[in-house]
Amino acid sequence: MKIGLMGLGTVGKGVVHVINQNGDSIEKRIGEKIEIKKILVKDAEKKRSPLVEGKLVLDPMEILNDDEIDVVVEVMGKEHPALEYIKKALENGKSVVTANKEVIARHGKELIKLANEKKVSLLYEASVGGGIPIIRPLKQCLAANKIYEVKGILNGTTNYILSEMKDRGMSFEGVLKEAQQKGYAELDPTDDIEGFDAARKLAILCTLSFNKYVVPDDIYTKGISSISKEDIKYAQELGYTIKLIAYGKIYENEKLEAWVHPVMISKESPLNGVNGVYNAILIEGNAVGRLMFYGQGAGMMPTASAVVADIIDVVNHIPGKNGYEDADIIPIQDTVSKYYIRLIALDKPGVMSKITGILGNEGISLVSVVQKEVHEDAAEIVLITHHANTGRIFKALDEIKNLHEIYKVASIIRVEED
Amino acid sequence: MKIGLMGLGTVGKGVVHVINQNGDSIEKRIGEKIEIKKILVKDAEKKRSPLVEGKLVLDPMEILNDDEIDVVVEVMGKEHPALEYIKKALENGKSVVTANKEVIARHGKELIKLANEKKVSLLYEASVGGGIPIIRPLKQCLAANKIYEVKGILNGTTNYILSEMKDRGMSFEGVLKEAQQKGYAELDPTDDIEGFDAARKLAILCTLSFNKYVVPDDIYTKGISSISKEDIKYAQELGYTIKLIAYGKIYENEKLEAWVHPVMISKESPLNGVNGVYNAILIEGNAVGRLMFYGQGAGMMPTASAVVADIIDVVNHIPGKNGYEDADIIPIQDTVSKYYIRLIALDKPGVMSKITGILGNEGISLVSVVQKEVHEDAAEIVLITHHANTGRIFKALDEIKNLHEIYKVASIIRVEED
Repeated sequence: MKIGLMGLGTVGKGVVHVINQNGDSIEKRIGEKIEIKKILVKDAEKKRSPLVEGKLVLDPMEILNDDEIDVVVEVMGKEHPALEYIKKALENGKSVVTANKEVIARHGKELIKLANEKKVSLLYEASVGGGIPIIRPLKQCLAANKIYEVKGILNGTTNYILSEMKDRGMSFEGVLKEAQQKGYAELDPTDDIEGFDAARKLAILCTLSFNKYVVPDDIYTKGISSISKEDIKYAQELGYTIKLIAYGKIYENEKLEAWVHPVMISKESPLNGVNGVYNAILIEGNAVGRLMFYGQGAGMMPTASAVVADIIDVVNHIPGKNGYEDADIIPIQDTVSKYYIRLIALDKPGVMSKITGILGNEGISLVSVVQKEVHEDAAEIVLITHHANTGRIFKALDEIKNLHEIYKVASIIRVEED
Repeated sequence: MKIGLMGLGTVGKGVVHVINQNGDSIEKRIGEKIEIKKILVKDAEKKRSPLVEGKLVLDPMEILNDDEIDVVVEVMGKEHPALEYIKKALENGKSVVTANKEVIARHGKELIKLANEKKVSLLYEASVGGGIPIIRPLKQCLAANKIYEVKGILNGTTNYILSEMKDRGMSFEGVLKEAQQKGYAELDPTDDIEGFDAARKLAILCTLSFNKYVVPDDIYTKGISSISKEDIKYAQELGYTIKLIAYGKIYENEKLEAWVHPVMISKESPLNGVNGVYNAILIEGNAVGRLMFYGQGAGMMPTASAVVADIIDVVNHIPGKNGYEDADIIPIQDTVSKYYIRLIALDKPGVMSKITGILGNEGISLVSVVQKEVHEDAAEIVLITHHANTGRIFKALDEIKNLHEIYKVASIIRVEED
């Protein structure tokens, strides 16, 4: 079994390392040796491990057109040119293993179709949850279930930031800077902190769980950049922890709800104990009940573990699934939740009555209101609503934002009891 | 795809129910219909669901010798005659799906060999962790890893009892009685509370994780029947929770440690939040790092979910593994741990110095000692040792037990920081 590796960044190095380190036990297990024949890199001159010596190529076609290569392993990341290479590999009758959540989330539909036509495998366990086995359990172990809910902490960077903010009382900006220095966050952290990375993974999970094609654009996405020290403190006082949650649900009428949003989760939730760079995914199935999968959602070796497991599956000829229906996504405005809202307002009589008046007009009632002076003439107002229609929350907040007494709507966080 | 179901108890009914309820979506997924052709029962006259009408048989040979039946699903439980039926089915070239941990743990070696010879599948996902996908992830998703540690809460009954003792301050006997009334514990609860059920599941997990045959007799097993309210209280004061832990580890020299024992785990352990009838399994692999799988470890529908997933795998021709080496188990005496020991002693001067003297002679040093008068002339002595050789702990306790000042050694619990 000869493979072509496209990309030799963190994950690529991990794949080389795992195959080198565990190759013997893998061979014993599957009765075949996995050999990396060629590795696509950008710079052939760079000093590298002796393990990759004599395998480096600069031209992708050397891999894509090599008849001896059965499996192409794409670990370059980014949408392009990875998408084009994957397509070409499938068209040439090669199975593809990829860790590329961007490509799978956006183009899974056409790629799965192409793989089916060519009777080859397209496997992507590493695209969600790093080393956590989740794609395969969804496809196989839970095949007897109708899965109706998926809820997860799918991004390690944001979970690390929120954990540190809570444990050390630091600001979002402070932790982010530290995380960047430690290499836990990218220099351009937008994809992580704005929730786009989580949304891509959620799209893949929803597609597999509900048998409906979901793409990242279907998913209402709000990240954690507006979460402040104050929000973390209020959450603790209220008995909650703030997590960036990716959520998908299918209703009896086959409509889907899917969003990524900061959520106050209760201390009783199994997700409450998921800290630092760990990820976790909760699944609710009609037979199995509630399951949780927990582990390192990123990192060189965990991700490589998942990639190599996919390669082994190709060797074992384990069949994939045949496609999904299109999804009917509920607009975020039509979903219902309790909300935590923090406003900064002019500290003047009458502000509160205006705010509650606007909320009342939208039929939104309140669990609690706390007002505190923050300095001279500014007050912080924290509202927690009863369950309300999200569209009405948005409408009320638009009106509130336009009051001349309001400096800003500082945070909007969903609140969940569980 | 026609199956023969052997047994129509809780799990058997669940299998009928899942196939009936989710049959359409399963058929869509795998492109084949799963049909239960015959069901073995003990009493054909009993009033039953219309779903099983016309399928009941009293003679096992009607299933085992039926050429139209491709898969035999054994959900009768108990070692005999299930073992004999499974053998006969494999010999007749049928694939077997079973939830029977007793048969798999004790006879897995010969049955796997027989299945390999006959080129059929023997699948047993439901034998460990109920609906939690664990067997298949170990076989497939983690195939790229050397797994070196497995640690789990594998028995829901004991976890429920310990959770209730903690939350409600009740005695072991009180909770057990209640659990029996609610149907969470068997009328003869020995298998659960003495740890035998957990040991069977651990044998299966160790075999798969370490690629070595481990049988329940290899596993030192101590249950929770001696855990008292006092132990629970002391554990809480010390910042621990008592759980019945099943533990397996493979060392560099390929020797195995494997035991089931009450353990004080730290509040930081991911296992700390696993309460009630939930089960959880922690896996440490050399590439993937730490993973946890969490869900309902028993119950009609979760277990049936796992059984039906196995049936689907047979349809999909997903290959199993080919066998394992024999294990080299470390005697429990040679394992090392911190220990919590609770003694009831005569409240007389000099007792403590005798006890610490005996421990000192065995080279066992103490983290802490607490002595309390319980009534008139009896004192309770709680010792926590530093890490010590278990054989020396046992030897010292034998000596201590024989002191005429000692009424009894009330509890021995392992202590883990994590």
